[in-house]
Amino acid sequence: AIRYLSKRRQERVRLIGDTLRQEGFDLVLLQEVWSEQDYSDLKVKLASCYPFSHYFRSGVIGSGLCVFSRFPILDTLLYQYSLNGYPYMLQHGDWFGGKSVGLGRCGVGVTAPLLSLSLQLHAEYCRDKDSYLPHRLVQAWELAQFIRHTSKAADVVLLGGDLNMHPEDVGIRLLRGWTGLQDAFVEATDIKGCKNGCTLVPNNCFTDKSELLPFPLGIRIDYILYKAISSFTVKCEELKTTMGPAPGTDIPFSDHEAVMATLHIQRQGQPVGATLGTADPALADVVTEARTEVGVGLRAAQRQRYSSGRMAVLALLLLLLQAVAALGTLAGLGADQPFPKLSFCLLAFLALGILVLATGLHLFHTVEVKMLHGTEDQMWMALRALQERP
Amino acid sequence: AIRYLSKRRQERVRLIGDTLRQEGFDLVLLQEVWSEQDYSDLKVKLASCYPFSHYFRSGVIGSGLCVFSRFPILDTLLYQYSLNGYPYMLQHGDWFGGKSVGLGRCGVGVTAPLLSLSLQLHAEYCRDKDSYLPHRLVQAWELAQFIRHTSKAADVVLLGGDLNMHPEDVGIRLLRGWTGLQDAFVEATDIKGCKNGCTLVPNNCFTDKSELLPFPLGIRIDYILYKAISSFTVKCEELKTTMGPAPGTDIPFSDHEAVMATLHIQRQGQPVGATLGTADPALADVVTEARTEVGVGLRAAQRQRYSSGRMAVLALLLLLLQAVAALGTLAGLGADQPFPKLSFCLLAFLALGILVLATGLHLFHTVEVKMLHGTEDQMWMALRALQERP
Repeated sequence: AIRYLSKRRQERVRLIGDTLRQEGFDLVLLQEVWSEQDYSDLKVKLASCYPFSHYFRSGVIGSGLCVFSRFPILDTLLYQYSLNGYPYMLQHGDWFGGKSVGLGRCGVGVTAPLLSLSLQLHAEYCRDKDSYLPHRLVQAWELAQFIRHTSKAADVVLLGGDLNMHPEDVGIRLLRGWTGLQDAFVEATDIKGCKNGCTLVPNNCFTDKSELLPFPLGIRIDYILYKAISSFTVKCEELKTTMGPAPGTDIPFSDHEAVMATLHIQRQGQPVGATLGTADPALADVVTEARTEVGVGLRAAQRQRYSSGRMAVLALLLLLLQAVAALGTLAGLGADQPFPKLSFCLLAFLALGILVLATGLHLFHTVEVKMLHGTEDQMWMALRALQERP
Repeated sequence: AIRYLSKRRQERVRLIGDTLRQEGFDLVLLQEVWSEQDYSDLKVKLASCYPFSHYFRSGVIGSGLCVFSRFPILDTLLYQYSLNGYPYMLQHGDWFGGKSVGLGRCGVGVTAPLLSLSLQLHAEYCRDKDSYLPHRLVQAWELAQFIRHTSKAADVVLLGGDLNMHPEDVGIRLLRGWTGLQDAFVEATDIKGCKNGCTLVPNNCFTDKSELLPFPLGIRIDYILYKAISSFTVKCEELKTTMGPAPGTDIPFSDHEAVMATLHIQRQGQPVGATLGTADPALADVVTEARTEVGVGLRAAQRQRYSSGRMAVLALLLLLLQAVAALGTLAGLGADQPFPKLSFCLLAFLALGILVLATGLHLFHTVEVKMLHGTEDQMWMALRALQERP
């Protein structure tokens, strides 16, 4: 819901508010509520049934994450991914969104702190030549690490959001394997709504049809993942998606279908040891696969850093050359020829512009290289730990 | 230790390595090791006595955080503060450093996971008119929140670093109050080294003497903070700082004196409940004071956002006006007068330059406003929780 850009935004926000009020969920995780005004309107509307809420602010325009809850939100924390696309890819806009994960610690009763995470990963714009894959993998890895480090005192971890990945993608396997999170769709005893739990479907009037040509049934791209930590068990009883237009109207709520899960959370007799990550022997393969992709991204970033640096140096040389020429003219050399002021001036501005841009790009790709390198290192550390585990 | 800029860098890094090897600490937290080559050299040199180490990569040039440990480093996580000065304050450079906190989970024996954090907050450049105070408070708050959320499964939390704050400053009080961390200097039974535990002292040849004029004894600016979480107690037996030149040389190790603490960590009979933050009634006052300062910063950021936005709009208007004039000339209007090509061109480039700069500034201050606003909100949530606590 981008103000001025999204179609029929206010109508859809009103519809979402109405439905949330009617359905009376325990916990609602929304994303891409870009306008804080929309959040405030929803907050006022939902005050009676969801007395607790939080809006996560991040990035230039924000990621639009918010949480509405029937239970008190005790504490929040926002973690922005270190990599999130490129600022110069204006048409993709992920960088400006400052994608992040928002953590809300809810108290359900007094004894069951619940960790709920609302998030969105970098979008995939072209599946065949997906240049953002390394960024998305860095995000998936940072998300997994963030969950591992923050979830230890929780009883139940809930994660909901648009992960921008197909269920079998390496990022999903990495996230699930490294954190031990379970997929509500896989575990559910009862599934309703779109076929295969798809949430990005071709017959939604807000989706880009051409993107979905290879997937006539749609893609399952929005997930609810969960995990019981201490003396609790979680079972997914029902998973449901919305289907097309909101009841009584001709438009859907959003360009993605909503996912709803009914979870049965039960306290067990005695605490089980906190399991961090599954002991799945295939996990090492997944981490290795992800690490290879990050390595590919690292080398691409290194090339871009080099070429932008070279461009900056060339622009600087051109400027220096011009300065020498200008000084020479001032000193009276070549005074018999007319000095081409206008083209000289244009060239200088062009060189200056290129210098500024190329320097900016060089700095940006330097950060990118650092982050990809750091993630590669961490994955290597993880692999070593996996191999040492009996 | 900035390559090419810092004085006698290689000599000092060699001295630091020698001393660390001789002293044989359990855990070493270094910062401002800007050059990864220096880290690699130290790693090779210290491999025998500190077999485990990690270098945290962040920002454009990085924050230079690294950890050397006698105990295995099981896992690491890096959290970059959301605000960290201004990119256009080149002479201060904090923005390019990407200040962050690095978390390393160490296993001491099998049963005592230890959480150690190495970090640095935004520098203070002018105490009387400290425009970075709101940024430093946001960082102190984010740090405190990060510790609260990640420390729950640890037995002991150790935090070491240059906090760039005097012991009585609101940021330190906020950090200590909100996390329950104890100051090793305050708790130590035996104190050696510089008077009052100062680490930024005037007789260090690398410090800026004029900065320390109001503080002839120096400032205590580097801290070791700790906290026992579960069934452990921590006692600081000795706190020591280095004093001036390294033994056998004429130069100190760094522009700050090093801090060393001997901590006695003991397992208690039965687990005590995890205490998050002290129940100190003064804590609400500290949070209120910090929130007021963040509010001041928020209003300043809003003003800057407004004025940079206005500047961008004016530049755009000027460009449009020029476009109209150029089109008018092309259409043959005013053809009797010569068109001032050069000055027209210069003016257009100037307007374009201002437009780009002002837009960039506007985006930057928009992020700043969001982050300050978010912190203000979180502090308000914390205050409400404090007041509701019996």
